[in-house]
Amino acid sequence: MTAQPIRNTFSENKPVSLPSRLRSRNLLSVTDLTPEEVLLILDTAEAMKEVGTRTIKKVPTLRGKTVVNLFYEPSTRTRTSFEIAEKRLSADTLSISSANSSVVKGETLGDTARNLEAMAPDTIVVRHGASGACHLLADICSARIVNAGDGMHEHPTQALLDVLTIREHKQKMQGLKVAIIGDLLHSRVLRSNLLLLKMLGANVVVCGPTTMMPPGIDKFGVEATASIDCAVEDADVVMLLRIQLERMRGHFFPSLREYFNLFGMSEKRLKRAKSDVIIMHPGPLNRGVEVASEVADGPYSVILEQVSNGVAVRMAVLYLLAGVDEETGE
Amino acid sequence: MTAQPIRNTFSENKPVSLPSRLRSRNLLSVTDLTPEEVLLILDTAEAMKEVGTRTIKKVPTLRGKTVVNLFYEPSTRTRTSFEIAEKRLSADTLSISSANSSVVKGETLGDTARNLEAMAPDTIVVRHGASGACHLLADICSARIVNAGDGMHEHPTQALLDVLTIREHKQKMQGLKVAIIGDLLHSRVLRSNLLLLKMLGANVVVCGPTTMMPPGIDKFGVEATASIDCAVEDADVVMLLRIQLERMRGHFFPSLREYFNLFGMSEKRLKRAKSDVIIMHPGPLNRGVEVASEVADGPYSVILEQVSNGVAVRMAVLYLLAGVDEETGE
Amino acid sequence: MTAQPIRNTFSENKPVSLPSRLRSRNLLSVTDLTPEEVLLILDTAEAMKEVGTRTIKKVPTLRGKTVVNLFYEPSTRTRTSFEIAEKRLSADTLSISSANSSVVKGETLGDTARNLEAMAPDTIVVRHGASGACHLLADICSARIVNAGDGMHEHPTQALLDVLTIREHKQKMQGLKVAIIGDLLHSRVLRSNLLLLKMLGANVVVCGPTTMMPPGIDKFGVEATASIDCAVEDADVVMLLRIQLERMRGHFFPSLREYFNLFGMSEKRLKRAKSDVIIMHPGPLNRGVEVASEVADGPYSVILEQVSNGVAVRMAVLYLLAGVDEETGE
Repeated sequence: MTAQPIRNTFSENKPVSLPSRLRSRNLLSVTDLTPEEVLLILDTAEAMKEVGTRTIKKVPTLRGKTVVNLFYEPSTRTRTSFEIAEKRLSADTLSISSANSSVVKGETLGDTARNLEAMAPDTIVVRHGASGACHLLADICSARIVNAGDGMHEHPTQALLDVLTIREHKQKMQGLKVAIIGDLLHSRVLRSNLLLLKMLGANVVVCGPTTMMPPGIDKFGVEATASIDCAVEDADVVMLLRIQLERMRGHFFPSLREYFNLFGMSEKRLKRAKSDVIIMHPGPLNRGVEVASEVADGPYSVILEQVSNGVAVRMAVLYLLAGVDEETGE
Repeated sequence: MTAQPIRNTFSENKPVSLPSRLRSRNLLSVTDLTPEEVLLILDTAEAMKEVGTRTIKKVPTLRGKTVVNLFYEPSTRTRTSFEIAEKRLSADTLSISSANSSVVKGETLGDTARNLEAMAPDTIVVRHGASGACHLLADICSARIVNAGDGMHEHPTQALLDVLTIREHKQKMQGLKVAIIGDLLHSRVLRSNLLLLKMLGANVVVCGPTTMMPPGIDKFGVEATASIDCAVEDADVVMLLRIQLERMRGHFFPSLREYFNLFGMSEKRLKRAKSDVIIMHPGPLNRGVEVASEVADGPYSVILEQVSNGVAVRMAVLYLLAGVDEETGE
Repeated sequence: MTAQPIRNTFSENKPVSLPSRLRSRNLLSVTDLTPEEVLLILDTAEAMKEVGTRTIKKVPTLRGKTVVNLFYEPSTRTRTSFEIAEKRLSADTLSISSANSSVVKGETLGDTARNLEAMAPDTIVVRHGASGACHLLADICSARIVNAGDGMHEHPTQALLDVLTIREHKQKMQGLKVAIIGDLLHSRVLRSNLLLLKMLGANVVVCGPTTMMPPGIDKFGVEATASIDCAVEDADVVMLLRIQLERMRGHFFPSLREYFNLFGMSEKRLKRAKSDVIIMHPGPLNRGVEVASEVADGPYSVILEQVSNGVAVRMAVLYLLAGVDEETGE
């Protein structure tokens, strides 16, 4: 692959010279990437979006490559997005979910990794409940590892698709005010987004119940507030995080109605933001909890664009990682 | 696609001019179809059957198209049949079953539909426990929607494969006596078959325990009886419906033995039918309940032909729906 | 396919004239095979290993063929290995697991087989808890049947991959001392290996707790001992069998620590074996029960080579069975 023409940048009027490929063979964390590499992924994703609009939505890029989707936690959204991305690249895909895996037979994650590696897959997409699980796989396997969410740690392709969506609407990242609101404590989406948004020069304000404010959040260089009005004020981007009802009902706040009253995004509350604000949510939505239906389905919402961009970003990541030479990769 | 030569009709000596394509982009109900469109599907299915006999059972028809199988209820038979049909057409397939879907995270069906749509699948095959679920998907998605069974409502590809099987044996539909026997209350197979058989000119008699006789069944223009002997008398086709043991044990009839004694199809009982009667069952069989093994495995049984025809009919439906132009589709 | 050049034999200096194809259309038991056919499979597997090292790990051998993986018991390792093998051969694959199959609706295995057959798959790979289940499928189906483990009966592709691994290290089978240690009672791996190793001229010693010694084991022509030191003494190959913790805790031996003390493979114990001994295990490993981690991960271990060879052997079996003419097959 030769160096691509520069199509876009993060800050206005500052063209960046793009690398022609990624350095690392794995995507475990957004910190694996330089700002220039992020730009390469986003530009590649935009090219991949075009494939999704063709009559034959398929390119032969990964023909004959085996991609294993190893999901230790249930996930429709992310798994489906990766699978569609893989098939559009013509990869052979294989899904292993914890429900029918030999985890039940007491095999360690390390042994599962070694066994998969022995079958010579080219890429392993992994979701696991434990932070760092994908680092263990990366240590053991020569297959490319893509982190599809590990514990409370990271979910880098989610952050990349979020940034792609923001860039499409704002044409820049530098100096944007991004308000991230909701369950700050349990969210791997938050962590990956904080790291990436700060790397790209955005100003981030986080907001949520004090019971859900992670200790040390200020180390990320973000402003933290319990006042949603302060958070939304003049925001360019409002990113809502999911309340994981199935885990926390009654523990962190009195009731769902109470949560919505204090932190839910309503049309009225949104009026404090910039007039061209965009509303984001990683899904699945809890309507009437994090967000009112009028807002989720309203003109500012880019929630479904995020889903579309997810397929494109994952195609770009899978394609670019496959291009990292084994010799030069870390 | 140009207009096809007329290969077959529903009534003897009455050739029909076939349309070259379907009008609707979705198959939600058999009522979406005109008799001529049904004929187009059946003729196309016969061409597809030929593909299944080749050494390489594959045509490139849907290459680069993404088909999502969205199954909210467990199903081996229908899901397998659709998946084989999709792969023979070279589509990329993706299966989402409720076991590992984000349904567990409380997402609404509408949001699931919107999210799938954002990933730009070409076709969604959906089975759902609620009548009308696939209509909701059709309202939201530009992907073609195929109803693979929705609640107690419809199962149109089952009725089409039944009609294909009948036509292969009887060369006509007009004036045939079709007896449908069993659980009339819970069967979506019944409803789709009633609508389709009446559309094509068959005379239908339904028969089952009075506790399982749906109110308003006479509106379909069929004869209803609790006497199996009357139902079978001179029948050209005997179609048995499945007793859903897992749901109804002990509620609707005293015992399985009692059910077989009153409504089970035995060789003796079958003697009242025409000498060239065919026995049909949508499967899975409850041997010794709806049907004696001698009958299910006997010379009149076309039960396994139904299964084979299922793959061919689904190939035809997927192919023809893909050919409906977005501009001209409903 | 023309007769292949002889690449290897089981005994030194005794070249064997290979058949050009298999006689039986199914692989239900290793006893379906002659020694020459085993050699054909192993030589073909070595050619298939080369495919796994290419950039594009795919050959068009089974393009347009449908392979159904019918798994009535959970299995990651074997199912994944078969699926990767099938995809590398360009087959269309379909997985049916008991979790979402119509088994729950009370269909008999015979009816499931007849229904699958009606959809015209080319090959069915089956794992089932009942010994002989795959024989029933073979009786009903014209599809090729591959036994992927049936009850306590057989697991022929496991034995073939074990023999491939041994041959790669020892260049012969004749006269090798193979010690098989562990749960002799519940292991289908044992049974297939005993039959195959004896067929190929190896000397086999089996060793395990007396509570796990199957009656009639001596009919296989093997030596049985409860002394692990005798079993390991001068062994060329030590094959460890898995203790199925989930089924037997506390029933067959006092504790896991006790089991390891008596039958677990430690570095010290291994010193009695030949200096070029190889250590095998079908996986998944119970570290510290059947085998110490130093041994499993040590220089004598070929456990991960077994996994790699599994994909190659399954590619060879699927390819060779597809080449058996329907007319000449049994």
